Amino acid sequence: MAIITLTTDFGEKDPFAGAVKGAIYNEMPDMRIVDITHSISPFHIPEAAYIIKNAYKSFPEGTIHIIGVDAELTPENKHLALKLDGHFFICADNGIMSLLTSEINPEKIVEINIHDAIKTNFPVLDVFVSVACHIARGGTLEVVGKISETIKELHYLKAQANNDLTQITGHVIYIDNYGNVVTNISKSIFETIGKGRAFTIHARSLKISKIFTSYSQAIDFTVNKEQRFDDEGKKLAIFNTSDFIELAMYRSNPQTSGGASSLFGLTYLDTVTVTFK
Amino acid sequence: MAIITLTTDFGEKDPFAGAVKGAIYNEMPDMRIVDITHSISPFHIPEAAYIIKNAYKSFPEGTIHIIGVDAELTPENKHLALKLDGHFFICADNGIMSLLTSEINPEKIVEINIHDAIKTNFPVLDVFVSVACHIARGGTLEVVGKISETIKELHYLKAQANNDLTQITGHVIYIDNYGNVVTNISKSIFETIGKGRAFTIHARSLKISKIFTSYSQAIDFTVNKEQRFDDEGKKLAIFNTSDFIELAMYRSNPQTSGGASSLFGLTYLDTVTVTFK
Amino acid sequence: MAIITLTTDFGEKDPFAGAVKGAIYNEMPDMRIVDITHSISPFHIPEAAYIIKNAYKSFPEGTIHIIGVDAELTPENKHLALKLDGHFFICADNGIMSLLTSEINPEKIVEINIHDAIKTNFPVLDVFVSVACHIARGGTLEVVGKISETIKELHYLKAQANNDLTQITGHVIYIDNYGNVVTNISKSIFETIGKGRAFTIHARSLKISKIFTSYSQAIDFTVNKEQRFDDEGKKLAIFNTSDFIELAMYRSNPQTSGGASSLFGLTYLDTVTVTFK
Repeated sequence: MAIITLTTDFGEKDPFAGAVKGAIYNEMPDMRIVDITHSISPFHIPEAAYIIKNAYKSFPEGTIHIIGVDAELTPENKHLALKLDGHFFICADNGIMSLLTSEINPEKIVEINIHDAIKTNFPVLDVFVSVACHIARGGTLEVVGKISETIKELHYLKAQANNDLTQITGHVIYIDNYGNVVTNISKSIFETIGKGRAFTIHARSLKISKIFTSYSQAIDFTVNKEQRFDDEGKKLAIFNTSDFIELAMYRSNPQTSGGASSLFGLTYLDTVTVTFK
Repeated sequence: MAIITLTTDFGEKDPFAGAVKGAIYNEMPDMRIVDITHSISPFHIPEAAYIIKNAYKSFPEGTIHIIGVDAELTPENKHLALKLDGHFFICADNGIMSLLTSEINPEKIVEINIHDAIKTNFPVLDVFVSVACHIARGGTLEVVGKISETIKELHYLKAQANNDLTQITGHVIYIDNYGNVVTNISKSIFETIGKGRAFTIHARSLKISKIFTSYSQAIDFTVNKEQRFDDEGKKLAIFNTSDFIELAMYRSNPQTSGGASSLFGLTYLDTVTVTFK
Repeated sequence: MAIITLTTDFGEKDPFAGAVKGAIYNEMPDMRIVDITHSISPFHIPEAAYIIKNAYKSFPEGTIHIIGVDAELTPENKHLALKLDGHFFICADNGIMSLLTSEINPEKIVEINIHDAIKTNFPVLDVFVSVACHIARGGTLEVVGKISETIKELHYLKAQANNDLTQITGHVIYIDNYGNVVTNISKSIFETIGKGRAFTIHARSLKISKIFTSYSQAIDFTVNKEQRFDDEGKKLAIFNTSDFIELAMYRSNPQTSGGASSLFGLTYLDTVTVTFK
């Protein structure tokens, strides 16, 4: 039996997430439903893009991912179902798939066209659940939509190299639960452009010239704990679990000592550059 | 196998919600458990009433809904199990069922009386779970309680028309995750009293004379995006997914630009009126 | 089929919790997964210790509890799998099991040693899930680790009696969703040291000389509601569901009137004493 995941901006309190789960069980009693998150900031497409990109891959192939962010059907906001990397995604055509489609070509895209039969002001419940259950029953995408070749891209979600390949310019795309600052500069573009050269990451007044592969790699455990105290708050850069450059404070708690975001003064969409020597 | 849903004010961190789920699986390993929400404001009965009213209907008939809000057993706060609209509800007799029972007569109500066997200061875990599993196994309500005819009503949850039928007076009963303001004025009372007459909705300084059936219906998509800019923040009223009048800002994010609640200065229980010409 | 529970500081938004659930379903499609919480304060070990202690017992024996708090593998932070009270726990050796191991001896402890095969900076996903699924398939702990006799204890999580047994000194270990203040003074140490003597609980300026067994026990329901008004905000102490002394306000909502924590001026790790006559 398939899995349906939910990624929405419904919040933790509103009845919408519960209602969607009820509707799925109503159609398919044996479905497994997984909440990825309901805490996307309202209408925040890049945030949803980052979350779904980093969560979907752990699920089995064939999993159906419903993304309920900015999903109201309008002339400018069509509904899509697509197959990509062996997974199915159901969402509005608002750029949410940008981070995924910039790396992996969709196998199939359809523009959902079952709306005539459905009067609704809650399309995630009424349209997306129907499409998800159709797919879960083994139905093809063509039955619920017409084949589409293109999909809306959000270009500011991509890091860019300059012409003489001395600098990559990217942006902050996510601040995580620990206050760590995730950029859209991937290990792949870093290695392709950098070719092993020395480099400096600049973000506001922050300068970092080394990228670790884990948080603790930045810490010298041969020094005893008291002397190592300064290290506890050490500024560092890592390639995170999704292979993006992340600017972090070692073991920071944004609720108490502050996280990298507040300490570095970095917020969503701020510029981060990597300059090669 | 039945579904048990949970609607509580336990919060997202405390061990209570996890413990309740463990207790259900301990009695019935194959149960499907759905969190509707654990983020009801502590002891906030109208909020819980609104959430359960708007979530339960999507679930299959026979679903068992546990409502763990203000559930401590006292001489003034009995425990109830009831069947209504084909669903089962287990809660305290504190008015939480008001929004439902004002529209639909319960098929059966019992006052739970299995407490003698149970010493507890956590009745949701110790009493509600037992009752839910009893129902899930096909047991009758009479076995766990004695038939009761009445249930506590919260009359302030109902909108009222004046004597000459020129005005409906209601209240704000919920602020949703987008900051939108939900009133207790239903489409049904609006149409029954209004009979198609022109009207004005008043809430503090806000005046609105049109009610849409979806958010985007308020927007003119033939105007190009730049000129339409003012519309992005357009004040509007809709009949929401539960057919209550909702005062909204189109695509508002309360975390950034503010939602309808903050922009209109409206909070829980504020008065909203509809005046007919 | 076994149950895996998740207790983490991943937060409600980040992709990590979803990814972990996907990875479990990827290995074992029929697993039941229960979120206990993902809202532990970042790196807050005593908070995680309190939550897991109070949630695990409701689950069936054999349940596997993954604790994803401060889990990065370092020379000072080994990974453990242990069996205790019929349940399995997978966590870092950072003191998180202290509240449990101070009361119940583990049946078996292993230091996980499957890391050679796994390059990761997300050990909960890559290591803990593998170990959990190994256990769920009936595998023994010895296959995934080497037997260990000791485990890190956090001694400040234990209340202590003075030498002449006239006083117990404890600390605030948790503030719950209602603002109630949970101490680490158990009913067991209270009764062992107190032997029925009169007592006073001191916490800042608060003095309480009675401990109830439920919140409502503190309220006189024979007095009518208006006269009883002062009682609604009554300060009280109870033995809570986990038999620790808890300092509470009857029916308090920290979002409106304030909870015990703010009203008593008590925060995490503040001292609470019980003095016997």
